[in-house]
Amino acid sequence: MKSKTEYLWFNTDHEHEYINITEKVATIVRESGVQEGIVLVSAMHITASVYVNDAEDGLISDIEEWLTKLAPPNPNYKHHRTGETNGDAHLRRLLMGHQVMVPITKGKLDVGPWEQVYYAEFDGQRRKRVIVKVLGE
Amino acid sequence: MKSKTEYLWFNTDHEHEYINITEKVATIVRESGVQEGIVLVSAMHITASVYVNDAEDGLISDIEEWLTKLAPPNPNYKHHRTGETNGDAHLRRLLMGHQVMVPITKGKLDVGPWEQVYYAEFDGQRRKRVIVKVLGE
Amino acid sequence: MKSKTEYLWFNTDHEHEYINITEKVATIVRESGVQEGIVLVSAMHITASVYVNDAEDGLISDIEEWLTKLAPPNPNYKHHRTGETNGDAHLRRLLMGHQVMVPITKGKLDVGPWEQVYYAEFDGQRRKRVIVKVLGE
Repeated sequence: MKSKTEYLWFNTDHEHEYINITEKVATIVRESGVQEGIVLVSAMHITASVYVNDAEDGLISDIEEWLTKLAPPNPNYKHHRTGETNGDAHLRRLLMGHQVMVPITKGKLDVGPWEQVYYAEFDGQRRKRVIVKVLGE
Repeated sequence: MKSKTEYLWFNTDHEHEYINITEKVATIVRESGVQEGIVLVSAMHITASVYVNDAEDGLISDIEEWLTKLAPPNPNYKHHRTGETNGDAHLRRLLMGHQVMVPITKGKLDVGPWEQVYYAEFDGQRRKRVIVKVLGE
Repeated sequence: MKSKTEYLWFNTDHEHEYINITEKVATIVRESGVQEGIVLVSAMHITASVYVNDAEDGLISDIEEWLTKLAPPNPNYKHHRTGETNGDAHLRRLLMGHQVMVPITKGKLDVGPWEQVYYAEFDGQRRKRVIVKVLGE
C-alpha cells in the first residue's frame, strides 16, 4: 500500500470563506502515484468544514445564508463562557461535516461532473490546517 | 491491496426518492473478494445523498418532511439565477451527507442490525451515478 | 495491508450522552501496529452518532440544545406507528453523521489540537456498539 500525507494551510482574510481546493487535492494525488485508492481530506480545526458540492457563487451565498439561519451567531452559547465567541462555527462544522473521502481511479479523482472539494472556514483570520492523506496502490 | 470500482445508475420516476441499495453494495463487495477493508459509497451528483439508516417507510416519510422544513424549496435561492431550480436539493445533500464508508469484515458488510445503505434522490428524473469503491485485502 | 477490527460497547445511564472515545480509538490504533493509514469509527446503531469536535462541556450543552431545536422530540413522527418513540434520535444521527475516518500518521492519530472523537447517544439505556476498523501499513 502506498500513502502520502500533505497539509494545506489557510489563513483567510474574512471570518467566513469558501475555498475550492479541488486542484490542490488532485495535485497531491498525482504526486502520490496512487492509481486505485482514496484520498481523505479533513479539516483539522473544529470550526471549519470540508465538503463536496458545486463551484457556483450563488449556491455558496445560499449555503452561507442557510447556515446563518440553522446555526446562528448567538452571544448566549454556553461555549462562550470559556472566552470563545465562535459557538456557531462549531455547529456549522457539525452540520456541514468536516471531511470527505474522494475515490481515486486510474490515477485521478473519480468525481462527478460538478463535484468540487471545498474548504469552508467559519472562524477565520487565523492559521488553520487541512490534512490530505492518499492511500492506495 | 485489492480494489474494485463499480457505478450504480439511477433515473428515478419521482423528483424525490429514497432507495435501499444495501444488497447492491453487498454484491459488489462479494464479487471483489475483499475480506478485510472498506467500501466507499458516494453520490457523484451534487443534489443526491448516500446515508445509512433504517429501512422503515414511516421514518423515510419523516426524513422527507424534516428536510422540507430545514431545506425548503424557495424560488429566491441565488443559485436559481443560473437557471437551475434545485437550490433546496443542494442543501439537502449537505445536510444528509453524500457518502458513507461501510466496513468489510470476513468478506461481509460489517453493519449493525438495522443499518441499511440508502441512496436519496432530491432532484430526480435524470440519469445519475453512485460510485462504489471497495478497498482491502 | 494490515487491518484490525474492534467493537466498543456502550450502555449509557441516560437517554442522551456525549462520550469522548479518543483514547480508546488511539489505543486500538497503537495495538494494530499501523503506521500509515486510517481508522474508521462508525456507530452501528441508527440512533447514535460519531463526530469529531471539542471536549468542552459548554459546547456539548450547546450541541444538545441545538439538536433539540432542529430535530425535536415529537409524538407525531410516522416512525412511531411501529411502536418506537425515537424518531428524533434517527434524525439527530443523520444531522450529526454516524462515522468518521481518523488519519494515522507515524503510528498516531493525526488530528488537530482540539479534535476529539465523540460517541453521541440519542436513545440510550440499552447495549449498543461502535466499530473501530484500522487499515494501513
